Amino acid sequence: MSLFFGNSSSVRTKELECVTLAYDTCWGDTGVAMAYDILARITGPRDLDALSLGELDRLAGEVRDAIVKRVDAVGGHLGSNLGVVEATIALHRVFDSPRDRIIFDTSHQCYTHKMLTGRAYGFFDESRMDEISGFTNPEESEHDWFRCGHTSTSISLACGFAKARDILGQTHNVVAFIGDGCLSGGEAFEGLDNSATFKTNLIIILNDNEMSIAEDQGGIYGNFAELRATGGRSARNFFSTFGFDYRYVENGNSIADLIEAFEQVKDIDHPIVVHIHTTKGKGVEWAERNKEEAHSVKAKGSSPSGETYTAITRARMLEKMAADPSIVVVNAGTPGGAGITADFRAAIGDRYVDVGICEQHAVTFSAGLACGGAKPVYFVASTFLQRAYDQIVQDLALNQSPATVLVFQAGFSSIDATHLGVFDLAYTGNVPGLTCLAPATAEQFIAMLDWSIDIADRPVVIRVPDKVVHGREAVFSDADVARFEVKHEGGDVALVALGPTLELAGLVSDELSARYGIVPTIISATTYSALDRQLLFALEDGHRLVVTLENGVLYGGFGEKVARVLGRTPLRVLCYGGTKEFVDRVSTKELNERYHLEPEALAADIAEIL
Amino acid sequence: MSLFFGNSSSVRTKELECVTLAYDTCWGDTGVAMAYDILARITGPRDLDALSLGELDRLAGEVRDAIVKRVDAVGGHLGSNLGVVEATIALHRVFDSPRDRIIFDTSHQCYTHKMLTGRAYGFFDESRMDEISGFTNPEESEHDWFRCGHTSTSISLACGFAKARDILGQTHNVVAFIGDGCLSGGEAFEGLDNSATFKTNLIIILNDNEMSIAEDQGGIYGNFAELRATGGRSARNFFSTFGFDYRYVENGNSIADLIEAFEQVKDIDHPIVVHIHTTKGKGVEWAERNKEEAHSVKAKGSSPSGETYTAITRARMLEKMAADPSIVVVNAGTPGGAGITADFRAAIGDRYVDVGICEQHAVTFSAGLACGGAKPVYFVASTFLQRAYDQIVQDLALNQSPATVLVFQAGFSSIDATHLGVFDLAYTGNVPGLTCLAPATAEQFIAMLDWSIDIADRPVVIRVPDKVVHGREAVFSDADVARFEVKHEGGDVALVALGPTLELAGLVSDELSARYGIVPTIISATTYSALDRQLLFALEDGHRLVVTLENGVLYGGFGEKVARVLGRTPLRVLCYGGTKEFVDRVSTKELNERYHLEPEALAADIAEIL
Repeated sequence: MSLFFGNSSSVRTKELECVTLAYDTCWGDTGVAMAYDILARITGPRDLDALSLGELDRLAGEVRDAIVKRVDAVGGHLGSNLGVVEATIALHRVFDSPRDRIIFDTSHQCYTHKMLTGRAYGFFDESRMDEISGFTNPEESEHDWFRCGHTSTSISLACGFAKARDILGQTHNVVAFIGDGCLSGGEAFEGLDNSATFKTNLIIILNDNEMSIAEDQGGIYGNFAELRATGGRSARNFFSTFGFDYRYVENGNSIADLIEAFEQVKDIDHPIVVHIHTTKGKGVEWAERNKEEAHSVKAKGSSPSGETYTAITRARMLEKMAADPSIVVVNAGTPGGAGITADFRAAIGDRYVDVGICEQHAVTFSAGLACGGAKPVYFVASTFLQRAYDQIVQDLALNQSPATVLVFQAGFSSIDATHLGVFDLAYTGNVPGLTCLAPATAEQFIAMLDWSIDIADRPVVIRVPDKVVHGREAVFSDADVARFEVKHEGGDVALVALGPTLELAGLVSDELSARYGIVPTIISATTYSALDRQLLFALEDGHRLVVTLENGVLYGGFGEKVARVLGRTPLRVLCYGGTKEFVDRVSTKELNERYHLEPEALAADIAEIL
Repeated sequence: MSLFFGNSSSVRTKELECVTLAYDTCWGDTGVAMAYDILARITGPRDLDALSLGELDRLAGEVRDAIVKRVDAVGGHLGSNLGVVEATIALHRVFDSPRDRIIFDTSHQCYTHKMLTGRAYGFFDESRMDEISGFTNPEESEHDWFRCGHTSTSISLACGFAKARDILGQTHNVVAFIGDGCLSGGEAFEGLDNSATFKTNLIIILNDNEMSIAEDQGGIYGNFAELRATGGRSARNFFSTFGFDYRYVENGNSIADLIEAFEQVKDIDHPIVVHIHTTKGKGVEWAERNKEEAHSVKAKGSSPSGETYTAITRARMLEKMAADPSIVVVNAGTPGGAGITADFRAAIGDRYVDVGICEQHAVTFSAGLACGGAKPVYFVASTFLQRAYDQIVQDLALNQSPATVLVFQAGFSSIDATHLGVFDLAYTGNVPGLTCLAPATAEQFIAMLDWSIDIADRPVVIRVPDKVVHGREAVFSDADVARFEVKHEGGDVALVALGPTLELAGLVSDELSARYGIVPTIISATTYSALDRQLLFALEDGHRLVVTLENGVLYGGFGEKVARVLGRTPLRVLCYGGTKEFVDRVSTKELNERYHLEPEALAADIAEIL
């Protein structure tokens, strides 16, 4: 989600209104609009067959308005969706979904697809917007084949579909629709490499809008530019080197041109890449001019409030980097989510490396930087770091490469099931040789960041909290890697709170003493890769129960380790955190209720067991 | 490690003797050989400078003999090492290691490098062979930069080195040495894509021996063939499309040609790919003719003994596949380790897909196959499956794609730290929606395999045991997914054994009753993704202690979940399994001692706590 919206919203709103002047005046309260007279009649893709080219063009305008309407109301991916309106209309006009399989890579660009497959209500009816997600989802429609949200998988999925079709004796088309940015992920290459050897129908639409989330990064983009410049005729052709048949469509926002191209490749008997040149943000001037900011935007009127960890991180990094020329900031194609603003990038110059959307390379590159004597700090979201699990194990941990990994967007949130940040406690915390830290306060975070950058003997993961809480000035040293801190000495029950759950522990303590007369011990744990065994075993004295708190899934997480270590003692242990489940856009309020991560429920549980 | 050696050893031994006739007659017992008169004088790379081309050629012969000597004695990678003898000599002659950084991809081909950097004793002295590993290791030598063992990371590491060098104002060369097979992994592509944009020295040596472990798989190999056929002059050039400078060396086993090529690129100011054409297995006729079998071989005279799970798997899969044409076997470039023999491949024809060494694609491809109506069974080693953690989470589990994953080489072993099979209990068992099974007997394994292939509603991981133990006929049904089995009812202590550790539980039970008069309850757990809570809670009746056993790392594993669930009860819990550590070629005997996974030590622990 863009962090820049707060700054640019006034400009954006003004310009959106210029371009899509009608969209917020033509609607009544019922959520059915006069201006959407073609779109409102589309119940499925085959309704496109009867429309003239002129009507399809008008439909594109209506779809574009509806995209803006939804994004303004609930936020979402703006630029990518605006860019593929025509391509999606042409796809559904030419191919016969769901008989023909159309797989959208990452699927953040599927809004038009959703509108053409019976879900336009999720765009033009504000009261129904929460009925659909911003990604493909088979539970919503037979036209959606997968839940996707991480990049670069569509060609692999299409390979599976194509092979299954062939061995089952079926004959439909298989189409992967993938953006140029998504091609920087290695799995897309793996899919290209494998699919190029297939002797069967497999159509890869390369949606080249000349952008990733930020700028494209990588050598292949020079070739794409050459292909665009030559109308696809350059002898130097990335796809041809795999053996692919290839076709180029210069105006990827022309429905007529796209229909012609897609009709030519429909039912083809071999793999082909159809390279279409589209305009990201098409039709909304602000989005066309501010492609990175417009990639993903928050709901109109929403703005970040208060102090953020991304701002704290930027400020500290600027100080550190001014003093130490060996520090390098690494990111894998998602600067916005990690707070890497344009200003920050400009300030650190060539010590910022965006490697493209390829977390594996980002981690191994960081390992190389570290072993080469630089001090890398890799900014990444929890959900994306999991794409580099093997590199964490092999290149960071086994090699003890002194890199710092800052994990953002970790913990419970109301995000899509494809982007959960609740698994990293397990997939980082159980790796040998990896020091994993969970600060409770901003001061601890800064102390940990300083320590991690300055030491040169091991990799460190810092799980950046969501909400800024201030505490007293903090220092961090080697000894703190396996040290918990007693914040309050009580009796009977000890609350062991990992990182930012310390705040909850305080509230539970208040509730316990007020309602049940129990004064618990409160322990702050700021590491989840090692336990303070001495402190834990000392709890046998004066306590009967240990309660652990963590903001991630319990399975493989922090509390289980405490339970194991204390298993030999008479102490009872209750672990609080998330269940092993995929939650899809469930509010944190509801999650906290579900997991009893609330003062009342948790205090009641404790009182009951005591 | 090759499973075929047992069958072909007589042929191999005979032919090895023809080609390297001298190697086993010229050695005395001291481990210093007359025939290695040049190699024995090499203390470091700079000793190459004084040698004439003729002497370097003779050195190559000695190195080749020493490779065979080591592989015969302790096993190892034969073909890849034989192929790069000349290239490694030329590299160390031209570049100035360790000032210049040479990074070997996967590093299984580093034997010559080790011999030229002071470690020839590990090859020609049988008594010192265990002092070195078969992979690069910074603890062994300043010429080794990373512990590597998984493919496709060298270019990413080189990028890190190059960037670190530049910001630190250094001027050395950075060289990545990568095989054609390793280029099928997506991370290699990510590294190529990123490094092609660098404006600095970065030299990528593509060692093209026309083979992966098995045959190369993927579209790019057609282009490599075209480049070979045209002496590197084809206009269609995979590397040029990234923007790389490029050079081709047809005779990659000619030291003179290689020295000339490397001298031309040394100190270059931009990234370049030097494509060298080598012969895998060079110099040993059997290895040249049997490239797949010779990739990695066991020590001379060793042979697999008794029944194996790979044979059981093949036999059952052939039966299943004969009856069901929708079953597809998937592998990612490592057929040998999973028992996918040439015979088996031939028998299942186009229902075998080797996708190249790309586990991410293999998992997502399997998800596509499954959602397309086929029944994929992905054969993979534990250490390599971790390269697809994100795909397991997103494409298998979140999408509930009904694929089967057979995890081989899981559990404790004496393997290198780069190839441990002890982390999968955590990285699969904690993923929501993934059914993870650990059979204790061959009959259970077959029942699970049948069930997994036949159901169509979820992904299943089966952790294939190492040693075949037979039990009674077994069936497996949906209800067994969260059901443990009481094998013996006792009292005071309950042993909960995951999968094949049931055998140990029996021995511990014997020890407990014989020595301490304790008759434990024995429970067989054959699932680690879900617990039989009812059974576990019922243990409160008649037991004081629960002991869990697992053949993997405890952190994030099975026992911790038991400890968490039982934390609310008065039952004490002791968990036995591996520590969170990287162990490097430590014998399973020593590991079992270290972890108290032995009847005597474990029974003593239990008796003490009771």
